[in-house]
Amino acid sequence: MYTLQVNTNSQPYPIIIGHGNAVWANITSHLSGKQVLIVSNSTVAPLYLQPFIATLNDPTYHIASHILPDGEAYKTLASLQSIWDRLMQLRFSRNCTVIALGGGVVGDMAGFAAASYQRGVNFIQVPTTLLAQVDSSVGGKTGINHPLGKNMIGAFKQPSAVFINTALLHTLPSRELSAGLAEIIKYALIADSAFLTWLETHMDALLSQDPTLLATAILKSCQHKADIVAADEFETNGKRALLNLGHTFGHAIETHMGYGNILHGEAVAIGMCMAAHLSHLQGNIGEAQWQRILTIIARANLPTQAPSAMGPAEFMAVMAHDKKNVSGQIRLILLHDIGHAYLTDNYDNTFLQLTLSHHLP
Amino acid sequence: MYTLQVNTNSQPYPIIIGHGNAVWANITSHLSGKQVLIVSNSTVAPLYLQPFIATLNDPTYHIASHILPDGEAYKTLASLQSIWDRLMQLRFSRNCTVIALGGGVVGDMAGFAAASYQRGVNFIQVPTTLLAQVDSSVGGKTGINHPLGKNMIGAFKQPSAVFINTALLHTLPSRELSAGLAEIIKYALIADSAFLTWLETHMDALLSQDPTLLATAILKSCQHKADIVAADEFETNGKRALLNLGHTFGHAIETHMGYGNILHGEAVAIGMCMAAHLSHLQGNIGEAQWQRILTIIARANLPTQAPSAMGPAEFMAVMAHDKKNVSGQIRLILLHDIGHAYLTDNYDNTFLQLTLSHHLP
Repeated sequence: MYTLQVNTNSQPYPIIIGHGNAVWANITSHLSGKQVLIVSNSTVAPLYLQPFIATLNDPTYHIASHILPDGEAYKTLASLQSIWDRLMQLRFSRNCTVIALGGGVVGDMAGFAAASYQRGVNFIQVPTTLLAQVDSSVGGKTGINHPLGKNMIGAFKQPSAVFINTALLHTLPSRELSAGLAEIIKYALIADSAFLTWLETHMDALLSQDPTLLATAILKSCQHKADIVAADEFETNGKRALLNLGHTFGHAIETHMGYGNILHGEAVAIGMCMAAHLSHLQGNIGEAQWQRILTIIARANLPTQAPSAMGPAEFMAVMAHDKKNVSGQIRLILLHDIGHAYLTDNYDNTFLQLTLSHHLP
Repeated sequence: MYTLQVNTNSQPYPIIIGHGNAVWANITSHLSGKQVLIVSNSTVAPLYLQPFIATLNDPTYHIASHILPDGEAYKTLASLQSIWDRLMQLRFSRNCTVIALGGGVVGDMAGFAAASYQRGVNFIQVPTTLLAQVDSSVGGKTGINHPLGKNMIGAFKQPSAVFINTALLHTLPSRELSAGLAEIIKYALIADSAFLTWLETHMDALLSQDPTLLATAILKSCQHKADIVAADEFETNGKRALLNLGHTFGHAIETHMGYGNILHGEAVAIGMCMAAHLSHLQGNIGEAQWQRILTIIARANLPTQAPSAMGPAEFMAVMAHDKKNVSGQIRLILLHDIGHAYLTDNYDNTFLQLTLSHHLP
């Protein structure tokens, strides 16, 4: 079992990583008061809600649950409102705790509900997907989608603890496991070339969920995320932006496909291929490095090409929506090298068009 | 012109107080970027929106406005959503500024929209009612009402500046001026007996809006609020709770009357009379002090009795909703003395019943 500390200004907190229910043995020390609302979804709740509640095992707690429909399509104001309504109907006080038991969508909505109910109550993350375990449960970004844009409404709300139980992943569909691996590969590309070599060695074992290697990969990923979040909690100095490698391209794909028709990690995987290609065209990385990136993404059973007809012009329009700089150039995360990402609007637009043509089938 | 600094951990900011447009002469130095959304309401906008925009007077700014219907009845999720929609339709970036030009309702909703749009954008308060100038525009409490409770959904969002122009008050209905005076009297009761003496001397001049005396009363009030907010920004150590003198009683009256049928300041005035009465029954303050409090409230043209039939049992039930301590006793702010308030659940329930009977006609 590993414990990692996230040192944010607003609230330092531990991430506990392990295999089995022992991970959250100490959860009650992170509750504030006796009122607990567990937010989960219709896929996760039948599998894990009752076993999770059983481990709390203290009749003095008032434990309630709220089950949302599963999927990014439900990351809406209506779902958020249903959590607020539940908390109000329970008459829970400012001293209650909201626990997210689920993937990134559940974590984002439960977190924003916790941030906004009575102007903020205690919040705990229990991520049940690999993507949530290595990315969305750490760092405090919470929120909902707006019909005109993803994640546009929300709050920075740090949890008081994150409990990562890798045993929960054995029920995860293999496609979602791969989506989580996309974010793990991302950390290697932006900050840790040795980690990429490690992933190349162990990718097959990770796909078959070797518990020790999986915990190591999650620990490495959370450490990178924690370091970046501690250096830029509110995304104001550019450091946190590096976590968006592949995401500006990826969001455009997600928007085009419609929420829920492609997994976030899959869209990010394609986006990282595009960023690597553009980095190669810019002369930052050689063809061998570019191919190495494509290969590890493909080995994780992730797509490397956009999945349906979408022209470069449409792609540009969607990407530009909220990422333009003052002069109208879209800011992107590119690679100087494997392990060294940077935020820039200084690239050749001809190369960007080539990258779009190359990846849009 | 006065400038006062509010020293919160999350963001220190100035309050500028004066008479006339010179107050916001320096506003552009508090904007972050060129995109500005002014949120106002249907009463204030026809009077002050164009003159306010004219003072910005810089063609490089993209200035838009969003007008909400006037009144507490519209402090709803639907209104909040309309602000989010407007910001999204304008494609405003994280670097935009939201300005609240209006009373407490506009400030609370514009503030929560600024707190949650793209997880937080720059926010400026330009309060146009006396109540907003001395209370709600300072301290960062923002939010909306939930059908089951007032201010239940929101955020702590400190503005980057507050501009208080007392000249805007000449169009304020006298009933709303009195409502603002209720909160001014509150600061005297909780923290400053000399200020109560000053208010007794100058109440008639304040009611006739003497600019110098009004600015002094606002400065004094904001100074008290700023001190308390700096000591307890997120309402976690009990100090900020003192600002709720009269508010637990007052909220029960507001809930019973229905949002918008009684002014917040009027309900607080009645609540302060009830708190003073209970403090007197508890033996904390003498009859003369109790009567002195009733007198200054009446002299400000504020009610001292609840306005419509509401039984003590119903009153208790509404008050208890979210203010109970562990053992079920409602926590209240009472007075040790004029100028010394305290939070307590240690009072005689028989006296509380007497207070309710005395004030419910």
